[in-house]
Amino acid sequence: MARPDGRQPDQLRPVTLTRHWSIHPEGSVLVAFGDTKVLCTASVTEGVPRWRKGSGLGWITAEYSMLPRATTTRSDRESVKGRIGGRTHEISRLIGRSLRACVNLKALGENSIVLDCDVLQADGGTRTAAITGAYVALHDAVTWMAGRKLLVGKPAQAIHRSVAAVSVGIIEGEARSDLCYLEDVAAEVDMNVVCTGEGDFVEVQGTGEANVFPREQLNALLDLGVAGCAQLAEAQRTALAG
Amino acid sequence: MARPDGRQPDQLRPVTLTRHWSIHPEGSVLVAFGDTKVLCTASVTEGVPRWRKGSGLGWITAEYSMLPRATTTRSDRESVKGRIGGRTHEISRLIGRSLRACVNLKALGENSIVLDCDVLQADGGTRTAAITGAYVALHDAVTWMAGRKLLVGKPAQAIHRSVAAVSVGIIEGEARSDLCYLEDVAAEVDMNVVCTGEGDFVEVQGTGEANVFPREQLNALLDLGVAGCAQLAEAQRTALAG
Amino acid sequence: MARPDGRQPDQLRPVTLTRHWSIHPEGSVLVAFGDTKVLCTASVTEGVPRWRKGSGLGWITAEYSMLPRATTTRSDRESVKGRIGGRTHEISRLIGRSLRACVNLKALGENSIVLDCDVLQADGGTRTAAITGAYVALHDAVTWMAGRKLLVGKPAQAIHRSVAAVSVGIIEGEARSDLCYLEDVAAEVDMNVVCTGEGDFVEVQGTGEANVFPREQLNALLDLGVAGCAQLAEAQRTALAG
Amino acid sequence: MARPDGRQPDQLRPVTLTRHWSIHPEGSVLVAFGDTKVLCTASVTEGVPRWRKGSGLGWITAEYSMLPRATTTRSDRESVKGRIGGRTHEISRLIGRSLRACVNLKALGENSIVLDCDVLQADGGTRTAAITGAYVALHDAVTWMAGRKLLVGKPAQAIHRSVAAVSVGIIEGEARSDLCYLEDVAAEVDMNVVCTGEGDFVEVQGTGEANVFPREQLNALLDLGVAGCAQLAEAQRTALAG
Amino acid sequence: MARPDGRQPDQLRPVTLTRHWSIHPEGSVLVAFGDTKVLCTASVTEGVPRWRKGSGLGWITAEYSMLPRATTTRSDRESVKGRIGGRTHEISRLIGRSLRACVNLKALGENSIVLDCDVLQADGGTRTAAITGAYVALHDAVTWMAGRKLLVGKPAQAIHRSVAAVSVGIIEGEARSDLCYLEDVAAEVDMNVVCTGEGDFVEVQGTGEANVFPREQLNALLDLGVAGCAQLAEAQRTALAG
Amino acid sequence: MARPDGRQPDQLRPVTLTRHWSIHPEGSVLVAFGDTKVLCTASVTEGVPRWRKGSGLGWITAEYSMLPRATTTRSDRESVKGRIGGRTHEISRLIGRSLRACVNLKALGENSIVLDCDVLQADGGTRTAAITGAYVALHDAVTWMAGRKLLVGKPAQAIHRSVAAVSVGIIEGEARSDLCYLEDVAAEVDMNVVCTGEGDFVEVQGTGEANVFPREQLNALLDLGVAGCAQLAEAQRTALAG
Repeated sequence: MARPDGRQPDQLRPVTLTRHWSIHPEGSVLVAFGDTKVLCTASVTEGVPRWRKGSGLGWITAEYSMLPRATTTRSDRESVKGRIGGRTHEISRLIGRSLRACVNLKALGENSIVLDCDVLQADGGTRTAAITGAYVALHDAVTWMAGRKLLVGKPAQAIHRSVAAVSVGIIEGEARSDLCYLEDVAAEVDMNVVCTGEGDFVEVQGTGEANVFPREQLNALLDLGVAGCAQLAEAQRTALAG
Repeated sequence: MARPDGRQPDQLRPVTLTRHWSIHPEGSVLVAFGDTKVLCTASVTEGVPRWRKGSGLGWITAEYSMLPRATTTRSDRESVKGRIGGRTHEISRLIGRSLRACVNLKALGENSIVLDCDVLQADGGTRTAAITGAYVALHDAVTWMAGRKLLVGKPAQAIHRSVAAVSVGIIEGEARSDLCYLEDVAAEVDMNVVCTGEGDFVEVQGTGEANVFPREQLNALLDLGVAGCAQLAEAQRTALAG
Repeated sequence: MARPDGRQPDQLRPVTLTRHWSIHPEGSVLVAFGDTKVLCTASVTEGVPRWRKGSGLGWITAEYSMLPRATTTRSDRESVKGRIGGRTHEISRLIGRSLRACVNLKALGENSIVLDCDVLQADGGTRTAAITGAYVALHDAVTWMAGRKLLVGKPAQAIHRSVAAVSVGIIEGEARSDLCYLEDVAAEVDMNVVCTGEGDFVEVQGTGEANVFPREQLNALLDLGVAGCAQLAEAQRTALAG
Repeated sequence: MARPDGRQPDQLRPVTLTRHWSIHPEGSVLVAFGDTKVLCTASVTEGVPRWRKGSGLGWITAEYSMLPRATTTRSDRESVKGRIGGRTHEISRLIGRSLRACVNLKALGENSIVLDCDVLQADGGTRTAAITGAYVALHDAVTWMAGRKLLVGKPAQAIHRSVAAVSVGIIEGEARSDLCYLEDVAAEVDMNVVCTGEGDFVEVQGTGEANVFPREQLNALLDLGVAGCAQLAEAQRTALAG
Repeated sequence: MARPDGRQPDQLRPVTLTRHWSIHPEGSVLVAFGDTKVLCTASVTEGVPRWRKGSGLGWITAEYSMLPRATTTRSDRESVKGRIGGRTHEISRLIGRSLRACVNLKALGENSIVLDCDVLQADGGTRTAAITGAYVALHDAVTWMAGRKLLVGKPAQAIHRSVAAVSVGIIEGEARSDLCYLEDVAAEVDMNVVCTGEGDFVEVQGTGEANVFPREQLNALLDLGVAGCAQLAEAQRTALAG
Repeated sequence: MARPDGRQPDQLRPVTLTRHWSIHPEGSVLVAFGDTKVLCTASVTEGVPRWRKGSGLGWITAEYSMLPRATTTRSDRESVKGRIGGRTHEISRLIGRSLRACVNLKALGENSIVLDCDVLQADGGTRTAAITGAYVALHDAVTWMAGRKLLVGKPAQAIHRSVAAVSVGIIEGEARSDLCYLEDVAAEVDMNVVCTGEGDFVEVQGTGEANVFPREQLNALLDLGVAGCAQLAEAQRTALAG
């Protein structure tokens, strides 16, 4: 099975990071990885959750969701079902953990930032696009806080690293980067790699439901993931410089 | 209080209806009334709800929702709260009723169309923008059904009228059309008018929580509503011809 | 289709407003519009919802519900289903808005009144009966507050107008007032009109799901609604004088 | 502490059983034990729950609920809270079990009867009033079924005994029958006794949360319970003969 | 039907009470009544529920649950269903009431003890085993509190009596003690008896769903229940002395 | 920080796998990794979820839960909260995926196996203990199916590999295997490794919330994980041979 869009195995889809997509949030980015489009907004609110009060530390949390017809067939809304599914929970937690890794929570003071990642259109890699876009939205929100003198200490130290993420996988034995939906479904092994701009790991999640995988495949996937994240980090830098 | 954007009392905000905004749905329209942006998708599914089976009739239903940061301050997600609020219920039902008024349900056969109206950015008039955009998405979905020979009888008769909606209100005694958020909050009387392309009424909802209103004000609002819907119907025709 | 009970098109069903129906609430009224019977109770509680604290204003809210066998066939309880339906939400909000229109919330001080409207038996027009009965229960509760010196300022100014409501509709082209269930089901257009004792509008909600309606029909319905509310306001005055 | 209404220890409050209180249900009874008023309706529906299909047996179930202001202070609705409380569950199950004891489920065929017991006003003993009233509503519903030829076999055998219930308790060492709310709160021991018209037991539930109780007190309470149920059985016979 | 395990009618199954089964809780007991195994833990927490604050009294509450495969066929988890069933509610309340009867709540100060009774394996009598085991766990937790000087007044008075419980029933006319699952299912009458170590009653719940029962049977069941509880009280004393 | 129990960095805690712990399930194992104890049961049921019907394939799913006082302080039950938390969802899904990797779903026919993993006592590594124990319970359940001729094809091929899991982490720069709770809390990097008996990977999840990690640390953790799983696989073989 060739790549549906003719890419090289290590080639990412076209990535766009459109800042200031919405007028209300303190940070808002429409990120596209090919046909996957996620709206990432960063909302700053005063105060922190009860269990964190008095700590002097800020808090960052994330919520991921899909519009019902972001996908090829319509899914029921979780609000209508009255409960959030396991997949949504899992991805929201992953995004939150990943973004907390790049912020000095002391610098935020006792303020919170909520990262909402709403998938407007899905074609594979929605969680990795969400992390990549949310970083840029978060950066804009922290800059906004700096402008309002809401940060504690030196603003430049509030964000001490960038994070980006890419999905990689094995399809018919071949390691490929940034899987689209058709590849995602066909993958024998599927891995999400979250890296900093310096190439360190923040999170690695590899799954071989349809198959198991030897150390060499794991290594090949990690190589692809690190390389993909490096390109995304560059795209983030360009967007933030723009 | 002058209009924040300097409009005439009877002047609508710039309206855009972007068809085919998403790749997956049978119909998808991004509608903008000024800064209010709603993504309306129409999803065709085989079959009808249980209580309708065997009737030979199709079904149309709608679900309205707001992204958490579509508004100036963030709202909690209804999926996280585990229940849908009264306002969401009310608006979803209004959209569903309005759109059912323009379709010959017999022509659909026993198929259903779900209209999802997700507010990406809110600045007043989200429910009226949703109705106006959903009509165009519905039209595209019915055309798609016609192309697949899914309609019963003559396709031309499946949609027997268009519907559009506008919010009107009294601010400091003045009747105004297409209120933005600041006007909506300040309005003494608030009315949503849903009309067909021929200028008949589908639904009229007028509320004077902060005040009560005499028959003359009601009449002035109805006049504005009918005029506004006529302009929107024209915009719909143009979009569908495009 | 003649009126099932032989009434004139503009004739209301027999209306009774039985005050002090229950022993516990501060106000309690059993209202009957023909076979429609709604128990309306007004409960005074100290304090206001959190978002209103410190405002110096009181709060009025309403909850509408139907007993499972108030209707011809049994409906499942919303408590058993674990969620409140859209119709219930919509009506509860309508009753709350309508009743807030007749009270000076400053006069209540930071106290709340909950209006519970429980339909014991339904034969059309349950929401309009609920509004009409709730006004009388609210009046009794405010009088009770006055007796306990719980009001701020002059008691006579706490309630500055009365509200009543009636359902009107078009059946086979004829405008009729106070529809019973059989007429409600058959109506081409259905409108709920909420008016003050002075004949101003508080809320107007007209729907033409099965049909659309021209301005003349809308006007005829408004005329009927205003006339019906005037008769109900008279019945409220009589009940409160009794 | 004397009885608030001056009754003898073994004296019931005035009991009324008003049949045909509502127009829609197959059986409907407003039962009053003094100021406690419960509306009991019996709804016949075709079919039985899935787990009972094909058994040839009918099913009887009960749902108990209180209006929010049936009590001296307002309680939140369980529909609004989104869940049914433990007390409601417990009482609904008790009513269901008690009423199933008096019906030959084979005679019902595969039909169900739902007994809804809604407390309109509470002054102690709501569950025992509910059982006593529900029996009469059930009897009327079974008679209605007989009239429609919905019963299997001989109608006279469908209901093979009557059931009634009374609450009894120990207050300051004295055994009393049919406790009102003030007594219920003060009782050291509280017992609900459900008996057949022949004086056999269907259910006995005795609780001594504030105290424990010896066998003699248990016996005294059982004596009072049996005597009270006998009087209620007589009232049921009279009501059904009326 | 003979007893499946050949016991005498008044004979209990082998009872074991294993203290300190878990390392974390302040009290923890694995209780076995034959094949029925319940893990009872007592958790001490500072503070009391809001409605009890400032009373100077402690609080004891209980939660009962079954592992999904404690039974012969698997049951769905209540956490997955999103609601607690009526049976669970009923039993949790029974355990809480029973255990509150043996503690001087003033002696606890404003502290709470939660008794969690999780059925690991079920073979009838789970609620009576839970009460019997929870008493021992509660005793250990109160001793733990005494050791930390958390009790008010004299520790010896904190627990003023013991409680134990047994299920009894009529099978083919014979009164039997401590029913196993097969007997429970076959019982014409089923009764749970909760007694103090002195032989007084705390709670009596007798049900004759499949049948009704005369006073003599009730008396025979009470006799068996009292005798069974006396043996269990002895086992509790032995365990606590161990 | 030395290891609390004095282990070598690569040393596992004592592991026990007690088969047939419960009498009802088709497979049941109490697994202990030191003080962590998880009851794993495997329940065989006829049929598969609706979306899988007609596929000829079986299904395996898992549910993870903790008793409220399995931990040092008590947690609220998810059944009482009415919803399952993100962590629970995430772990249940991980266990399900891991166990599906070792079964030939065609061999099961259209039957389902539910793996319930209930943590009776927690001291770190509950999810990895659950996977390791669930494999043995699953094996027993499949053997039970073979005995009942419920398998399709050759029973020996139904389970084509074993799976086990271990948690590894970096504490103060040192890579350690099988973290206990105190180490888990202190870890800079935390990884769960799921391997087959042949040493291939099924799932790898590494997280550096408090820190990021370079490729060398990732490699060291993978080495430890593979080695730990090999020992656990040996323990599983021994248990199944026992």
